[in-house]
Amino acid sequence: MTANTIYQHGTLGLLVPGLFEGTITAGELLTHGDTGIGTLDGLNGEVIILDGHAYQAREDGQIREIDATETMPFASVHFEQPDVSVDVKGLSQAEFEQQLLTEYQLENVFAAVRVTGTFKHIKTRVAPKQTRPYQTLVAATTKQPEFEGDNVTGTIIGYYAPHLFQGATVGGYHLHFLSDDHQLGGHLLGFDIDQATVKVQRFADFKVHLPIDNAAYLQEKFDNQAIDTAINKAER
Amino acid sequence: MTANTIYQHGTLGLLVPGLFEGTITAGELLTHGDTGIGTLDGLNGEVIILDGHAYQAREDGQIREIDATETMPFASVHFEQPDVSVDVKGLSQAEFEQQLLTEYQLENVFAAVRVTGTFKHIKTRVAPKQTRPYQTLVAATTKQPEFEGDNVTGTIIGYYAPHLFQGATVGGYHLHFLSDDHQLGGHLLGFDIDQATVKVQRFADFKVHLPIDNAAYLQEKFDNQAIDTAINKAER
Repeated sequence: MTANTIYQHGTLGLLVPGLFEGTITAGELLTHGDTGIGTLDGLNGEVIILDGHAYQAREDGQIREIDATETMPFASVHFEQPDVSVDVKGLSQAEFEQQLLTEYQLENVFAAVRVTGTFKHIKTRVAPKQTRPYQTLVAATTKQPEFEGDNVTGTIIGYYAPHLFQGATVGGYHLHFLSDDHQLGGHLLGFDIDQATVKVQRFADFKVHLPIDNAAYLQEKFDNQAIDTAINKAER
Repeated sequence: MTANTIYQHGTLGLLVPGLFEGTITAGELLTHGDTGIGTLDGLNGEVIILDGHAYQAREDGQIREIDATETMPFASVHFEQPDVSVDVKGLSQAEFEQQLLTEYQLENVFAAVRVTGTFKHIKTRVAPKQTRPYQTLVAATTKQPEFEGDNVTGTIIGYYAPHLFQGATVGGYHLHFLSDDHQLGGHLLGFDIDQATVKVQRFADFKVHLPIDNAAYLQEKFDNQAIDTAINKAER
C-alpha cells in the first residue's frame, strides 16, 4: 500500500439497506492509512482519522478516541502525503469546493482534502447509534443531531470522488470535521473558512475491500437506483 | 499485489464517450496479473490474457500475441489462484451463469471465471478499430463482426462484478473467449458447454487505477445515466 492509494472498506451502498454491522477493526483499518473518515458498528456516529488516531464524534456531541478492537462497516483511509499545500483566506464552502475542483482538475480523480485552520462557522451532524433490527440508512438518519460553532479552530478531512463511483462511495465531496479542542465534530454540513492551510492529495488508485465473508452482505439484494437516491439524501 | 485483488486499469465508463487512447502498456499491466481481459488502443479488438500472455482478437478474425509496448485504455487482470475447480457437463450459458451465482454466492462479490474445455457452440464479437476523432462506444460498436464455431476447444476468461460497480466496470458477467488453436476469439456473446473445468476465484479487493495524467480523461464530462445505458447496450 502506497501513498498513491485510497483504501476503502465496504461501500456506501451497503449502508443504504441497513448493513451497519462492523466488518473491519479500527486496528486493521489503520494499517492501510493514517488519515480518513468512516462510521462505527451500528452507524454509531462519525469517524475522523488524523495522524494515525481514529476518533468518534458521538450523537451526544462528545468526541472520544476509538479502540483498535472497535469495528466499522464503512471507512476510507490513505497515508497522508499531500501533493500541494496552500494557504487560503475568507472562502465560503461553495467557493472552496469549486476552486479545488478547477485548480487541481479533480472532476474525474479521487483526492483527499485536508483543511486546517480557523473557520468562521462550522455545522456538522452525527448519525445516531442504531439497534437491531437495523432500519435503512435514510430512516436511520431522518433525525440527526446537528452541531454548530463560530470561530472554530480545527481540521476538515475527507475525499472527493468521481461521480461515476457514486454507490461504491459518495460521488463528489465527503468531508468530516474535528475541532482542535475536540468539542465539535461530525459529518460536515457546512463551513466558512476564515484562514486555513489546504492540502490536496490526488490518487491514481482506489482500492475497495469488500466484506465477502459476511453473510448479510452476501445475501443483500442491492438496488442501484435506491442507493443513488439514498446517498444524495443521507450523505449531503 | 496479491491473488486476492483484481487490478483494473481505467473504467468501462471512460470508453463510453470515446476515450479509446491507450494509457497503460501491456508490459506494465502484466506486472499486476497473469490473467484477464481488456481492449487495445483505439478500441482495437478484444484482449484475452492467459498464463501471462496477452492476445488480441482482431476484427478480421485473426488472433495475435500483443507486444509489451502496446497500450490499452481499459483492462482487468489478476494473478490466477482459483478457490475452486469443478468439472461440468452439458450446461447452457444461462444455466452456467445462474449456477455460479448461486453456488458461490457471487451476487455482491468480484470473481474471476475461467472455463476450459469443449463447447458445443461459441459466439463472439470483436470491436472494430477506431480512428480519431473517436466516436462514442455505442456508435463505434453498432456494427461489429461476429464469429461462431461448433465443437470448439478453448477457454472462457473474465469476471463477475457486483452491479453496484456498473460504470466503473461491467456489472454482472464480462467474459472473453480464446480457442486453443487461436482460430476463434473475442468478447463472448453466447456459449454452450459440452464438458469443461470451471475455476472460480473470489476477490475481497478491487483496485481501480485511473489515468489521472491523461488530459482527455481529466476534462471529460461523464454522465452516469448515459454510461449505464451504453454499457447495457455495448457490453452485453
